[in-house]
Amino acid sequence: MATFTYRISRKVYKVKGSIWIENDDVAFIGSGRIHLLEMIKKHGSITLAAKALKMSYRQAWELVNSMNTQSAKPLIATSAGGAGGGGTRLTNEGEQAIKQYRALQKRFHLFNARESRKLKL
Amino acid sequence: MATFTYRISRKVYKVKGSIWIENDDVAFIGSGRIHLLEMIKKHGSITLAAKALKMSYRQAWELVNSMNTQSAKPLIATSAGGAGGGGTRLTNEGEQAIKQYRALQKRFHLFNARESRKLKL
Repeated sequence: MATFTYRISRKVYKVKGSIWIENDDVAFIGSGRIHLLEMIKKHGSITLAAKALKMSYRQAWELVNSMNTQSAKPLIATSAGGAGGGGTRLTNEGEQAIKQYRALQKRFHLFNARESRKLKL
Repeated sequence: MATFTYRISRKVYKVKGSIWIENDDVAFIGSGRIHLLEMIKKHGSITLAAKALKMSYRQAWELVNSMNTQSAKPLIATSAGGAGGGGTRLTNEGEQAIKQYRALQKRFHLFNARESRKLKL
């Protein structure tokens, strides 16, 4: 038995968006900055993180500086020299920022999926 | 009796975002386009709506064209000449688009307010 499906071409509408956190009306963290924090965590270096994201060191440094100066405690700490050769690492605040932003983003995606189903266009 | 309030300077973090509706991964309506529809409704003219929003007629026309061609039925209808001198008006679909987007945006603002209260940064 053959089954024939007649499907009227139908537009598929979806709710999309972007979400970020502001601090006194100034951008604090959003998708791009969180990705940078994740790359710094992975590589232990702003230089390598910038390369991985195809941005200049200066640009990456400015984003880190913006986050660090806005936060009560820095999100990124840099130690110079020493036995381990120094390096850049996320502080507890940096880890918290990633965790909270990713959880927020997940809830936002659920919100968008629910809203997409409600659309009658 | 004097009341002294000691308030530690505290950062106020807020969740902000933007939201839009896509149609097969192409922008269909967002905040700017909805504002344009509202101005067209108010003024009955693309030219006057464009002026009110400080955009060129061409830009406004292209946005209207993008919405009209993506939608199963046009959001904006233009009638030429006649006793009333013709004009541009919103169709039922245009009215629906405004209504649904504004309701979606309201729920999104509530989502952001709830999420802002959850932040621990």
